[in-house]
Amino acid sequence: MAERITPRSESYSDWYVDIVLNAQLADYSPVKGTMVIRPRGYAVWERMQSALDAMFKETGHQNAYFPLLIPESFLKKEAEHVEGFAPECAVVTHGGGEELEEPLVIRPTSETIIWSMYKKWIQSYRDLPLLINQWCNVLRWEKRTRLFLRTTEFLWQEGHTAHASAEEAREETLRMLEVYRRFAEEYMALPVLTGVKSEAEKFAGAVNTYAIEAMMQDRKALQAGTSHFLGQNFAKAFDVTFQTAEGGLDHVWATSWGVSTRLVGALIMAHSDDKGLVLPPKLAPVEVAIVPIFKNQTKTEVLAYADKLNQTLKGSYRVVLDADDNNSPGWKFSQWELYGVPIRVECGPKDMQNNQVVLVRRDSGEKLPVAISEAPQRIGVLLQQIQQSLYDRALEFREANTRDIDNYDDLLAFFENDGGFARAAWSGSVESEARIKAETKATIRVLPFGNEQEAAGKRCVVTGEPARHMAIFARSY
Amino acid sequence: MAERITPRSESYSDWYVDIVLNAQLADYSPVKGTMVIRPRGYAVWERMQSALDAMFKETGHQNAYFPLLIPESFLKKEAEHVEGFAPECAVVTHGGGEELEEPLVIRPTSETIIWSMYKKWIQSYRDLPLLINQWCNVLRWEKRTRLFLRTTEFLWQEGHTAHASAEEAREETLRMLEVYRRFAEEYMALPVLTGVKSEAEKFAGAVNTYAIEAMMQDRKALQAGTSHFLGQNFAKAFDVTFQTAEGGLDHVWATSWGVSTRLVGALIMAHSDDKGLVLPPKLAPVEVAIVPIFKNQTKTEVLAYADKLNQTLKGSYRVVLDADDNNSPGWKFSQWELYGVPIRVECGPKDMQNNQVVLVRRDSGEKLPVAISEAPQRIGVLLQQIQQSLYDRALEFREANTRDIDNYDDLLAFFENDGGFARAAWSGSVESEARIKAETKATIRVLPFGNEQEAAGKRCVVTGEPARHMAIFARSY
Repeated sequence: MAERITPRSESYSDWYVDIVLNAQLADYSPVKGTMVIRPRGYAVWERMQSALDAMFKETGHQNAYFPLLIPESFLKKEAEHVEGFAPECAVVTHGGGEELEEPLVIRPTSETIIWSMYKKWIQSYRDLPLLINQWCNVLRWEKRTRLFLRTTEFLWQEGHTAHASAEEAREETLRMLEVYRRFAEEYMALPVLTGVKSEAEKFAGAVNTYAIEAMMQDRKALQAGTSHFLGQNFAKAFDVTFQTAEGGLDHVWATSWGVSTRLVGALIMAHSDDKGLVLPPKLAPVEVAIVPIFKNQTKTEVLAYADKLNQTLKGSYRVVLDADDNNSPGWKFSQWELYGVPIRVECGPKDMQNNQVVLVRRDSGEKLPVAISEAPQRIGVLLQQIQQSLYDRALEFREANTRDIDNYDDLLAFFENDGGFARAAWSGSVESEARIKAETKATIRVLPFGNEQEAAGKRCVVTGEPARHMAIFARSY
Repeated sequence: MAERITPRSESYSDWYVDIVLNAQLADYSPVKGTMVIRPRGYAVWERMQSALDAMFKETGHQNAYFPLLIPESFLKKEAEHVEGFAPECAVVTHGGGEELEEPLVIRPTSETIIWSMYKKWIQSYRDLPLLINQWCNVLRWEKRTRLFLRTTEFLWQEGHTAHASAEEAREETLRMLEVYRRFAEEYMALPVLTGVKSEAEKFAGAVNTYAIEAMMQDRKALQAGTSHFLGQNFAKAFDVTFQTAEGGLDHVWATSWGVSTRLVGALIMAHSDDKGLVLPPKLAPVEVAIVPIFKNQTKTEVLAYADKLNQTLKGSYRVVLDADDNNSPGWKFSQWELYGVPIRVECGPKDMQNNQVVLVRRDSGEKLPVAISEAPQRIGVLLQQIQQSLYDRALEFREANTRDIDNYDDLLAFFENDGGFARAAWSGSVESEARIKAETKATIRVLPFGNEQEAAGKRCVVTGEPARHMAIFARSY
């Protein structure tokens, strides 16, 4: 069962795959580039969905569902959009035994089909804002895939909103970026940088793309969510106008924003260790695993003791009692570590005599004997501490691996060695961005908010020209 | 806004479409045969999902996600299955700009891809039972489509379970049928008949198909959910064997079961009226709409009075306060009726003087003045009463339109007139079933449990041969 996990020091990418497969989060499917999300992985995604969905609803959004298949001609209506997405599309040419008159593409994202509907639904400023989200699957044909992080099919949510003014749409774009930041930090225990993407890295069809970016344990960046200000691009492509409050006619302003099952990959890469998965308590499908330790003669008593605790905890926590007697306690300890359960509770005959149990933290391995009567309350506190210390550890790691760099030789040296996040001044020119990418494989992950002011008086790390931005450079997933 | 709804007496099918479109439950999409589920419709589906998902989890099932695209060769591995589904498939022939080596079909159902994975996951009886459910979209190319009831793409859940014995798989099949029956009756307020399908009507690849069948207001039947005992058909097609507890080797036994967004169509057709949608409270996204009645001089007071009630109700009910002053109270009453909100609360200056509000039932139109202090408690009771009386009314209607018929002339006459559910003895022969279908358009909806015993001594309504079953015949959606 619990097969060997490649240590991170040996191969970070093998380690990652070993965790995904051995912790039964996902499996390779027979269709190239796609994956099966197994129950243990899907349960994490369900918890992510439920937290995000509540946050979307609190901010006034409603869910809806738009068709999977999009006429090929729709994609072509927005010039940048088709250029970005057409090469990644899966195309349906036959249906019901006949060749189709017009090929249909499986949605790589739904701006086009959604804006074709918004044209029907929006006439007046009274119909705005329109705040819709959709949970669904999308397909983007990928050459090199990686479980959760990059798969041909993935699950995601895509918000698509329509507004009466540019200001309102910009506010919405940033509001949802902030929802993503809060979700990443408060639920995933994942510190993120926020900011705007460079032109080269923005969404095909957007005016501006904002993102949250996190650092993984191999010091690479992972884009964990994006929020786009689409201007009037899609409204113009689909001719969606509205009567303004003043009686005029204007094109509608748009945003879109999304996060995907890629977040499960980010979660694994950010916190897990060589023993297996480490999950932040808020997203752990099981928070507490009780492992009774017994021999034949003590079995009945110890099981009863463990089950009493189990019953007490059930109302407040997601708990399992591992009463199976085919496997030794030691085997079970490893198994629950592999699955990433935040707290393991051990109890044997001696604990029973002392009216205690032993709480074991998954993140630190620390063992804490506590009186059984205090266990429920202590577990609650401990779960909060684990959530917080995963965040603190990830933040400390990111800060330790973020460097202010002011000359090109240092930048090259930084990425020749361990790498990480390099903060450097940048002229804003496409050429210098391309040169860094060619020579270091690092790209601009984000231009943090306020970067223009900070760049004032500085010189571009590549060209020595006056800088326009402070940028975060990193290699990325 | 509130356009005219065709009365049921004029055209039941136009009435249905008018409700769906005017109540903003769904809309036609630009892709033939597919639909957009709008927020008001999707919110009903979300409530259905959440109730069903809890019932699936209570019965030990876990969610997972399998790929959308299935290699064409997989479908062909089970002979009946490919015959049933291949003609309905959408086929992807190109991906990433290139022609694919093997065409991929968009899942019409997922037995084949799932059993190809079960082969990897199941080795021993210890791996069984495997109880997995998936919420997803599926595609079946349809010539004649109808919003919610029959669309090329639809949303559904599909359970796929694997067992060590035929008995256990049969038990699971019936357990899930019972889950569907309870859901239909307790949440949808929809009485259903349960039983087994005839050979002609069963799922392509099943040994037996069980179903829940409901009667709509036009007396037609609607299949609202199916649960299949698949025997070892898919295990044999994908060579999925397991080591038995006794050390032998056997093929795994299977079930699958599903319900879809078609249920939203059933819900509309079962309860709604010529004023619009009628929703059972348990599935209503909004349970209570408060409509204050005011003129300019009373606006502030009445709104404050209404909002106080709104705040009181919020903790316990899904409530909206319709404070908009662009529309008259009368217009708002119609609008909330159209949207199917179970209880409308009216309050004007006179009600305020009397410390009362008026509760108006959507199902009956009954108006109930109540003291404002008692409103929260009265609303709770009323919601339960509405839920129950929708069920009672639907049951009464079904019983009034179900006839025991023992000769063929009466059967023909029954379907020439109003029709409904005909209970009749049947020989079990494919020919007599086909003859009834050709001459009346009615099919066997279900052979109710215990039908064989009841048929003893009776003669087939078509052929006069000794009967083997009592069958329910009806025209259907």
